[in-house]
Amino acid sequence: MAEENKENIVYIGKKPTMNYVLAVMTQFNSGSSEVVIRARGRSISRAVDVAEIVKNRFVPDSKIRDIQISTEKLPREEGGTVNVSCIEIYVTK
Amino acid sequence: MAEENKENIVYIGKKPTMNYVLAVMTQFNSGSSEVVIRARGRSISRAVDVAEIVKNRFVPDSKIRDIQISTEKLPREEGGTVNVSCIEIYVTK
Repeated sequence: MAEENKENIVYIGKKPTMNYVLAVMTQFNSGSSEVVIRARGRSISRAVDVAEIVKNRFVPDSKIRDIQISTEKLPREEGGTVNVSCIEIYVTK
Repeated sequence: MAEENKENIVYIGKKPTMNYVLAVMTQFNSGSSEVVIRARGRSISRAVDVAEIVKNRFVPDSKIRDIQISTEKLPREEGGTVNVSCIEIYVTK
């Protein structure tokens, strides 16, 4: 995967889905030709929603170029680590 | 996408993650070389967990061949439709 500009990554959290749709749109409107939508754990479903809404409703000429999934080991407060799934959705226009 | 045998699709619902991991393993052990993990809405995060657990812990020689996302229009009881995101994760070994 080519090295990417950190600025074109939108991290999905627990805010309303449309906040993140707006963040992706802002990236595209400021000249990015690719935006990476990134999420962990339960937010993964929301990341897919964001990508689909951007593609189907707001940027009709955009495409899902690639989707990668992975596992991250996060430290736990009690010690040890916990595995969390991640997704990265590459949207281009 | 090649036409696929319906039997090699594992639909992700609200059961514990390991139930679906077991279903994928059963498919592979019965001779399938590809299993499709399919989920809608909030279950999408669990689908990614299932794929990652199969790949990292149970079938080390398996690979994520492709991931597709899409939107389905489901009928609502009150009439009209609601858009739901879907994911299909193609795991091969």
